[in-house]
Amino acid sequence: MPFHLLRDLEQLKKEILTVGTLAEAAVEKSVLALMERRTDLAEAVLRGDKELDRQEVAVEDMCLKVLALHQPVAADLRFVVTVLKVNNDLERVGDLAGNIASRVLALAKGPVVPVPDEIKRMADAAQSMVRRCLDALVGQDTALARAVLQEDEEVDALHKSIFGVLEARMAERPEQIATEIQLLSVSRYLERIADLATNIAEDVVFLVDGDVVRHQTW
Amino acid sequence: MPFHLLRDLEQLKKEILTVGTLAEAAVEKSVLALMERRTDLAEAVLRGDKELDRQEVAVEDMCLKVLALHQPVAADLRFVVTVLKVNNDLERVGDLAGNIASRVLALAKGPVVPVPDEIKRMADAAQSMVRRCLDALVGQDTALARAVLQEDEEVDALHKSIFGVLEARMAERPEQIATEIQLLSVSRYLERIADLATNIAEDVVFLVDGDVVRHQTW
Repeated sequence: MPFHLLRDLEQLKKEILTVGTLAEAAVEKSVLALMERRTDLAEAVLRGDKELDRQEVAVEDMCLKVLALHQPVAADLRFVVTVLKVNNDLERVGDLAGNIASRVLALAKGPVVPVPDEIKRMADAAQSMVRRCLDALVGQDTALARAVLQEDEEVDALHKSIFGVLEARMAERPEQIATEIQLLSVSRYLERIADLATNIAEDVVFLVDGDVVRHQTW
Repeated sequence: MPFHLLRDLEQLKKEILTVGTLAEAAVEKSVLALMERRTDLAEAVLRGDKELDRQEVAVEDMCLKVLALHQPVAADLRFVVTVLKVNNDLERVGDLAGNIASRVLALAKGPVVPVPDEIKRMADAAQSMVRRCLDALVGQDTALARAVLQEDEEVDALHKSIFGVLEARMAERPEQIATEIQLLSVSRYLERIADLATNIAEDVVFLVDGDVVRHQTW
């Protein structure tokens, strides 16, 4: 492998990790803001999204440059294409953390309602999935990536059960419907974050093993 | 441009259009299924998603082959990378049409409630956006792509107004809360389809003009 390509691929790995770290921190902060009704943290998440957006554009530029300059093949090409896709997914994770933060700001204007335990568990799982899919990418660890795929099932099950929980609360207290709908949105955002972590884990498996695990039933 | 590269790029254009056509048809069918409470159509959408998934994997394989074999640069490289991204987005559009179809099946088990006019308008707009972003991609038409970006604002506004509409209906008839929540989900899926069409339109602008319009305020 030419020295410059090796150097550029290492740099790309660092840059995509920066995107990942920003996205992970955004999820963590937005969840903490939700649990503790902290609007200051929610606002910080929304402000921070611009940095993540800039970093995403920078990584994509760098991928295009690596492809154009070095014309990598085989595993190197697959790595660059994987970074392009993971980059896109991480930017969306950041957007979803921003969506959660927006809901926290809306919830802060309404009555204090307990955050259902299912949402807390989804939040823990989604955060763990984002962290672990990034670890899997950096360590090219397919066992870890496959563990992330299984964790997604748990999040999906929690998200489904949330409907019933919130529906019952809405029927009991119609004056809180608007608030419960906000919580339903949060649940959906967490489910989408978990889905994106799943996409990334699938990309890691593809990168390392060449298996397309997408669209398989788990 | 070497002849084989030209031929492969043309083939890639045809293949991504096939993905687009499948995704567009899935959205159209799922919306019709919703409006006419037709579970047969909803089931057809869910069955059809497997073909779209297969086609998506085939396009990605082809992109990797084109990159590895021809090592395209400049505009050709940008085109292949754009196809990779658009392919991913179209597959998600298909997934969301599948989600709408699942809601149609759930709604069919409940009482007949009117589909709010806002959802009909969102469905029309989302379908038009998917069709037009594909036309923009094929014709490399940035004016059309920018028109899609503006249409997204309308969909976002409709989606926001839906919350109030459904909240009022839920407060009035608590026994229909579960049904209204299904409609809220449909609204969200339509909004995400419109977002994905917007992503594609942004990619077309980037492809043709080299402008990054993502993360700008419209």
